[in-house]
Amino acid sequence: MEEDFTAAERDALYKAIFSRRDVRGQFRPDPVPDEVLTRILLAAHHAPSVGFMQPWNFIVVTDPQVKSRIHADFARANEEAEAMFDGERRSLYSRLKLEGIREAPVNLCITCDRERSGSVVLGRTHMPAMDLYSCVCAVQNLWLAARAEGLGVGWVSILHEDALREALGIPERIVPIAYLCLGHVTHFEATPELETKGWRKRLPLEDLVFRDRWERRAPEIPSPPGERVRVRGSRSKDFQASRTPQPHRLHAVHPPHPSPLPGGERGIAPPSAGPTQRARNASSGPAVIVGRAASSSCSSAVCRSVQADRSTRGAAVASSHSASGRASSTVQAASKRARSAS
Amino acid sequence: MEEDFTAAERDALYKAIFSRRDVRGQFRPDPVPDEVLTRILLAAHHAPSVGFMQPWNFIVVTDPQVKSRIHADFARANEEAEAMFDGERRSLYSRLKLEGIREAPVNLCITCDRERSGSVVLGRTHMPAMDLYSCVCAVQNLWLAARAEGLGVGWVSILHEDALREALGIPERIVPIAYLCLGHVTHFEATPELETKGWRKRLPLEDLVFRDRWERRAPEIPSPPGERVRVRGSRSKDFQASRTPQPHRLHAVHPPHPSPLPGGERGIAPPSAGPTQRARNASSGPAVIVGRAASSSCSSAVCRSVQADRSTRGAAVASSHSASGRASSTVQAASKRARSAS
Repeated sequence: MEEDFTAAERDALYKAIFSRRDVRGQFRPDPVPDEVLTRILLAAHHAPSVGFMQPWNFIVVTDPQVKSRIHADFARANEEAEAMFDGERRSLYSRLKLEGIREAPVNLCITCDRERSGSVVLGRTHMPAMDLYSCVCAVQNLWLAARAEGLGVGWVSILHEDALREALGIPERIVPIAYLCLGHVTHFEATPELETKGWRKRLPLEDLVFRDRWERRAPEIPSPPGERVRVRGSRSKDFQASRTPQPHRLHAVHPPHPSPLPGGERGIAPPSAGPTQRARNASSGPAVIVGRAASSSCSSAVCRSVQADRSTRGAAVASSHSASGRASSTVQAASKRARSAS
Repeated sequence: MEEDFTAAERDALYKAIFSRRDVRGQFRPDPVPDEVLTRILLAAHHAPSVGFMQPWNFIVVTDPQVKSRIHADFARANEEAEAMFDGERRSLYSRLKLEGIREAPVNLCITCDRERSGSVVLGRTHMPAMDLYSCVCAVQNLWLAARAEGLGVGWVSILHEDALREALGIPERIVPIAYLCLGHVTHFEATPELETKGWRKRLPLEDLVFRDRWERRAPEIPSPPGERVRVRGSRSKDFQASRTPQPHRLHAVHPPHPSPLPGGERGIAPPSAGPTQRARNASSGPAVIVGRAASSSCSSAVCRSVQADRSTRGAAVASSHSASGRASSTVQAASKRARSAS
């Protein structure tokens, strides 16, 4: 099959994925137009579902009284949650803003009707949570669509399920999956707030990937996102350009956090006891951004902040696509640029 | 905040969402380059996670022996699953291809480590499934990224969890969330196979949306996706162009199934007993596609097939975006075109 997404389209998807945030504190009061809401709900409705059962419903909440009631339950639940932590952790927790229920113009509850297509569902017999998971896929579709529409979304999970059911009249047979706040925002943070505020750090992808068996390291994939750009001819053993014979076109994708943070805690013990097979040099210098995206079509606020974030953190991911022969000169130019910059 | 996604970028995201398919039968054997795999895994790793715990791992399976072992379990599970259905339904089930385990060059198991950040997790205290759901968000990110990379993905849920654990060495404390098949494909189907083959139909979005309370209809949102295009000045009560004062630019988004199928079974009893408040005329004529996307930048195979699908099914969704003033002439032209075409 011919590739049916252009590089620009692919980049746009990655842009949504990498710039999506869990928004709690930047909601603006202006209403979300119905047609925008329709589009993002349609995106949710086009999520995959087990046996094509489409078990979701969407309760759009704009009534301030309903929001206040749910917010009151959040306040109770959050006190309980805070009490689970001790000392400094509790102090930090208490300073986090964890919801935007009243400020966000729209709240949205996504539910799962487990009986939607009868008791036997194709694909659910052996993995009974599949219908719940389908609804989560709908949440993520909606979240990304909202991001592309310029809408922030925050998932509030510090609620008592019973209180939520009561506030929204959700019957016993229906499972609430997600309670979301959404609306236009003053800005999107360049990094997740829980990272900025010191709660936890992003883990290095390479520690999370195994090959063929739990804990068996995958030395070739993925290439460590914290590495500086590797292009063909520079250090191709570290960043293998391709296994296919075609020439390649390079472009940068836009992960705001491609690197393990310099000196940062890992937050997870590496499953294998041995040292990782590649040195990490994420903190050794400024980012090298090569290729099309860097040169560069994207001048949006997010991209600028991502690039600022990159240049302080010092990493970029260069990647190559199977592409037509004419792209090879781009590769060479990009490769040259990368070498001279590093 | 200024809009930071262009209309083209937004459309690209919707294109991925609406053209994503659960692929079982069209895998090609050519390998997936490591750097492509890295990108889609990085997309998964940038999913939202409760308390930023990032509880996922990714086991990349390419060993034919491991695949065969898992396929053997699928065969057993599938016999059991088939036996759950009777008569014609069983016969139809038996003709469905429900996995591509051996054909797909890459299988991928996504798991959840519920203890990754200790026993108390920010946001999980009151909704204990949140860590599992975070991993599902990662699945959906990966699925969309794969689609934009031209890779098909199929989620196989007809497996015994114990067999899967054993085949991959997954320890007891780790929860397998998803087993995916992925690879390049000969083509993407324009419609979900379970729909094409008569298993179930897509539900009308309007039946799934409530306002402020369970089963309370949302008459304004969403506008019925099965409606023919409504633009400002034609039937704006049915498709309200906007609540904001700005002029609008129209463009079509690309849902392959915007319409309730003509004469199709609904598959779900409408929760409210009364008639829906708007007539459905999805089957009354060919699609009217207005605006930029229709006129039209997208000539990809998918878009062509979507348009073919549309013209036989008879519907399109026109939508409006907040945009700059110069767009108003586009609106008027599109509106005129739509009226003369309908």
